[in-house]
Amino acid sequence: MSADRQGDVSKESKPESVLLRPLGTAAAPGQELVCVFGTGDMGRSLGLRLLQSGYAVVYGSRRPHSCGPLPQGAQPTGHEEAARSAALVFICVHREHYDFLETLAPQLKKKVLVDVSNNLKKNLYPEANAEYLQRLIPGAHVVKAFNTLSAWALQNGPSDANRQVYLCGNSDEGKQAVAEVATKLGFTVLDKGSLSAARELEDFPLQLFPEWRMPLRVAVGLTASFFFYLLIRDIIYAYVDQGKDVSFRIMVSLANKVFPIVSLIMLSLCYVPGVIAAFLQLYRGTKYRRFPDWLDRWMLCRKQLGLVALAFAFLHVLYTLIIPIRYYVRFRLSASTISQIKENRTSVFDTTLAWRADSYYSMGILGFGLFLLLGITSLPSVSNALSWREFSFVQSKLGYLTVFFCTFHTYLYGWDRFLQPYGYKWYTPPAYLLSLVVPSLLIVLKLLLLLPCVNRSLMRIRQGWERNDAEDGSARVLLT
Amino acid sequence: MSADRQGDVSKESKPESVLLRPLGTAAAPGQELVCVFGTGDMGRSLGLRLLQSGYAVVYGSRRPHSCGPLPQGAQPTGHEEAARSAALVFICVHREHYDFLETLAPQLKKKVLVDVSNNLKKNLYPEANAEYLQRLIPGAHVVKAFNTLSAWALQNGPSDANRQVYLCGNSDEGKQAVAEVATKLGFTVLDKGSLSAARELEDFPLQLFPEWRMPLRVAVGLTASFFFYLLIRDIIYAYVDQGKDVSFRIMVSLANKVFPIVSLIMLSLCYVPGVIAAFLQLYRGTKYRRFPDWLDRWMLCRKQLGLVALAFAFLHVLYTLIIPIRYYVRFRLSASTISQIKENRTSVFDTTLAWRADSYYSMGILGFGLFLLLGITSLPSVSNALSWREFSFVQSKLGYLTVFFCTFHTYLYGWDRFLQPYGYKWYTPPAYLLSLVVPSLLIVLKLLLLLPCVNRSLMRIRQGWERNDAEDGSARVLLT
Amino acid sequence: MSADRQGDVSKESKPESVLLRPLGTAAAPGQELVCVFGTGDMGRSLGLRLLQSGYAVVYGSRRPHSCGPLPQGAQPTGHEEAARSAALVFICVHREHYDFLETLAPQLKKKVLVDVSNNLKKNLYPEANAEYLQRLIPGAHVVKAFNTLSAWALQNGPSDANRQVYLCGNSDEGKQAVAEVATKLGFTVLDKGSLSAARELEDFPLQLFPEWRMPLRVAVGLTASFFFYLLIRDIIYAYVDQGKDVSFRIMVSLANKVFPIVSLIMLSLCYVPGVIAAFLQLYRGTKYRRFPDWLDRWMLCRKQLGLVALAFAFLHVLYTLIIPIRYYVRFRLSASTISQIKENRTSVFDTTLAWRADSYYSMGILGFGLFLLLGITSLPSVSNALSWREFSFVQSKLGYLTVFFCTFHTYLYGWDRFLQPYGYKWYTPPAYLLSLVVPSLLIVLKLLLLLPCVNRSLMRIRQGWERNDAEDGSARVLLT
Repeated sequence: MSADRQGDVSKESKPESVLLRPLGTAAAPGQELVCVFGTGDMGRSLGLRLLQSGYAVVYGSRRPHSCGPLPQGAQPTGHEEAARSAALVFICVHREHYDFLETLAPQLKKKVLVDVSNNLKKNLYPEANAEYLQRLIPGAHVVKAFNTLSAWALQNGPSDANRQVYLCGNSDEGKQAVAEVATKLGFTVLDKGSLSAARELEDFPLQLFPEWRMPLRVAVGLTASFFFYLLIRDIIYAYVDQGKDVSFRIMVSLANKVFPIVSLIMLSLCYVPGVIAAFLQLYRGTKYRRFPDWLDRWMLCRKQLGLVALAFAFLHVLYTLIIPIRYYVRFRLSASTISQIKENRTSVFDTTLAWRADSYYSMGILGFGLFLLLGITSLPSVSNALSWREFSFVQSKLGYLTVFFCTFHTYLYGWDRFLQPYGYKWYTPPAYLLSLVVPSLLIVLKLLLLLPCVNRSLMRIRQGWERNDAEDGSARVLLT
Repeated sequence: MSADRQGDVSKESKPESVLLRPLGTAAAPGQELVCVFGTGDMGRSLGLRLLQSGYAVVYGSRRPHSCGPLPQGAQPTGHEEAARSAALVFICVHREHYDFLETLAPQLKKKVLVDVSNNLKKNLYPEANAEYLQRLIPGAHVVKAFNTLSAWALQNGPSDANRQVYLCGNSDEGKQAVAEVATKLGFTVLDKGSLSAARELEDFPLQLFPEWRMPLRVAVGLTASFFFYLLIRDIIYAYVDQGKDVSFRIMVSLANKVFPIVSLIMLSLCYVPGVIAAFLQLYRGTKYRRFPDWLDRWMLCRKQLGLVALAFAFLHVLYTLIIPIRYYVRFRLSASTISQIKENRTSVFDTTLAWRADSYYSMGILGFGLFLLLGITSLPSVSNALSWREFSFVQSKLGYLTVFFCTFHTYLYGWDRFLQPYGYKWYTPPAYLLSLVVPSLLIVLKLLLLLPCVNRSLMRIRQGWERNDAEDGSARVLLT
Repeated sequence: MSADRQGDVSKESKPESVLLRPLGTAAAPGQELVCVFGTGDMGRSLGLRLLQSGYAVVYGSRRPHSCGPLPQGAQPTGHEEAARSAALVFICVHREHYDFLETLAPQLKKKVLVDVSNNLKKNLYPEANAEYLQRLIPGAHVVKAFNTLSAWALQNGPSDANRQVYLCGNSDEGKQAVAEVATKLGFTVLDKGSLSAARELEDFPLQLFPEWRMPLRVAVGLTASFFFYLLIRDIIYAYVDQGKDVSFRIMVSLANKVFPIVSLIMLSLCYVPGVIAAFLQLYRGTKYRRFPDWLDRWMLCRKQLGLVALAFAFLHVLYTLIIPIRYYVRFRLSASTISQIKENRTSVFDTTLAWRADSYYSMGILGFGLFLLLGITSLPSVSNALSWREFSFVQSKLGYLTVFFCTFHTYLYGWDRFLQPYGYKWYTPPAYLLSLVVPSLLIVLKLLLLLPCVNRSLMRIRQGWERNDAEDGSARVLLT
């Protein structure tokens, strides 16, 4: 009877909705039957896709007679009957309503329960939804799966960020059964181990670039600071001191000072924690002691720091390359030529200046090229194809070379400018000088670590040697 | 005897062919034996690789005594004998010849048959080759596999686009057995589910960027239209009206007008279908009704539209950056300086113009930077690593920001030019004005959708709410 | 007793080392027990991670009472006892000490032994470590795994180049058991087949870009040769002949001649082996004969050749784009304007020159754009997503188009310069002429191969046809 009513509803009120492909309403002989608990958006989307992929679908609902329109071909019944009918049950119900499932424990025994639920916030509950479900129905094989997909992907199949179904669970057969369904629905399956990984999977859809937050905050902080510093020195000073309005310089000239400064500082910040860690290991004489929390966190976001720095370097490159098309630059060049003629001056070609300017550009280009290479090897598919030795060669050896090129580029930019008093407007040092502090310090410390005696100690520590128990070191040489 | 003859043939007529590594001609005790039906290119390549990977290979042939040179170490025998000897049979025969296999049904019972066949065209036959094979020999475990690899990769092992063996089949043991062979041959295995996926696998090697066709056609169409439009306005008009030959402008100036125009239009075309879909959902009051076919197709190629637009934007950037090296530009700048001096004019620096020009460049650079970011997150390995929320944040939020920056960039380019009558040569509007139609409309519509009242309705609909059955909405709140 | 001592040691001598998370010292009821042989760096790192992931860990040591500090919660015992206690044993011992394991063969029977060892050099031993281990203890299920990870990743979980655990072994159950542990530790598992793949896995961590060596050597060789060639022609010649010091040109002008030359030559070197192979196949009349070794090696590094060429092309683009900002260029432009005025010359606009210069830039930009496209499709995740037909379309069709654009770009650069005697300083030809030799030859040979008659023969050969056994070709048409 319920099926009739349902049929009526979908025929009358919205005839062409839901039904995407013609489907028989009765399960064909060879068709597998799966059960979906819950007739909300998730349940309906999933049911639709299951029907399209050739499964027969039974919905379990508290009120099977009035649960609203379902995908055509699906049968709504009571929970108990639905639970009994299929070996695989998708639980598309909010966690708050899980308690009613406890009463179905006998029917759900030995069944595979797929928990697709997500929470609205992290750490809302002491245990993961799937673990809670397993505790409620200990006799069932609970598998956490499909929760990382959007409802749209559940309904329409894989697309960009929705190609992989992560699953976890304590029962291998359960996972195998769910993996087969996921494969049939067109997804790639990634096993994440036992049910203890459920929390991680439930947190995954909530995350919004967690590991990018700190680097982005650093970037915004540095950008804002240097922007105001340069605003005062370059724009406001000119206005106050000479009464000139050069505010138009904000758009390109100022931006093209802020971006390289932030980029250089952030690039060196990628390598500072490694140097600190090395000195800490040298001081402690062991690598088995944990680093302080702040250092651990810093080390974990080095890649993101570097990529943000690369983005800023990229902007710096573009801002530099458009310089000769700028109206302001063309005006000034033409004005200088005209004044040369009018005053009948002849400027002499300065070879030192040519050397310096060309070296400055050359260092910048080579630094940027290497930086880009570092960025490319950070792409997941590229870094996966590299051996550990190759990856650390690129990121460490070439990384330090990049730092060196970019720092040298900045030194060449400054040249002897730091000696000239007119650079210290209102007693503030030029911004480029400030940007050189961290990288210069980094290079000095790194060179210290490369001294043969220091390097030898460090290598030994990193291979497991410990200073403070030299007495039983002899036993460990055998390694058994 | 046949083995002898074969040995003779390969020794006499082409001694150094085929044999790549020394291989014993008899199966070593621990060696697994596999059978290959068919001695064509596919069969020979596959057999060679199997032999190199340590398998013993028996060829099944209609005429085992005259089937031509086979990889050394392989045994040609009759079909029946070959079928009996191995548990795994590779069917390297064209589909047209499958019918003879039916007579071997008894010998092939319970065997794993690997269908490696491909067709010359799509939809040549009503059912997939592998399904046809399964129907011919219902007692066998048919697995579709290896067909997506080139014969070269079959013979020489994995390389660039030939690293993955897709397989599908109804029998899990069968798939397991084939997966082991594929792994041993050096490939990565991707299970695509049951045999109903066979058609998809058979169509895969035939496809040539199917989802790129529409975007490329749009790109070519737009490029051609704007090229001729600008050719008439910029080159032919100058020739007819002033008798000047400025045809050299085609190579750079014209290209650098066409590319950004096409890029901007195509970028907005990525976002138009989403806006149309939203208005359609608002109008219908439900998200469960299917979109019209054209809209579905449009939505499915948004990524490709965007990437083609990015390629055009990239060309625009390069064409812009070489402007100051161009002979024509240098000539004109020098000429203007000279004329200033000769006529003793002094041009005054225009701060508004400086602001406008610099903002124009700045917007362009930032827009291009964001656009590149969108492109990078479209790389399969990057989008796979993102959660759904992160992916849609980048593609939607940052995507609209990109549209905004690029549109603003174009408005700043135009400035008050649209007010000046000389821009309307032969009563045609300037091309940049035409390029602004779609993005401006898009931004207005998107802003409409962001109005709180409209947005709220849309959000409710996207969470599964439906307008026309509000009466049983209360039941659905419980979601069970 | 040993546990007590160990507890003492870790409490007294280094209380906060090792212990990262509080762990019970006794195995909880549901905890799985695994055994680690060896208390060196590898053993300790792995044990730590296993404990953190919820396993109970027993260390097997020759001297359990004095094996040094172990991760807290782990139990050191004698080898026999440890071997008996767990079903899974990690062998974190150097290969030189494997012999003692032979005496434990009875206790290790039916156990899963995970060989994590690596060697210091390739080919140090006649057989792979894991195969040696299997030979020593034939009754155990030896699985090679975890050896490709760094000790850091073993201790701290997956990170960039350490996400995947490659494993191989002859026993499916053994591999399954290890795969489960690896999944629980957070890694992705990649099955590489039987134990015969062990050597490959053991060589993997030692490799440092083996397939990049030849291309990089070619690049360095070409760069050095052309650098000195141009140094002599451009810098030393000017000094000797005219007494002018133009050494500052080394940094940008010279680099911007060397980079495009090397790039163009290396790009064509990607396509030369394919053309040679085609002529070889035509000459031999078969595709089943092996290519000479040098050709095989050349073909295998085409991708790397191309990517190095792309890197040089990228540098060329940047070096070109900074030209107008250079001090030297600005000085010269201004000087030429001034001299024009002073001498009252009026230079006439040269339309041919404008056409040529603009075409030159246009070809370069389009060539670089296509080149970049080739580079992007070389990314592993992109090439994996392409069908074989698509990949070869891009790499072959678009590749030759790239060669054509870049060669044409260079011809336009040269124009009629090769006719002018002043270009042949000290009787040496201009460098750009030298760079055109290989690509021009390549294009001519490729055009020859595209002649209908030649192309038809080649296609037939590539489909498996052989010239020298036309007599039994009829039999092969049936392919069975």
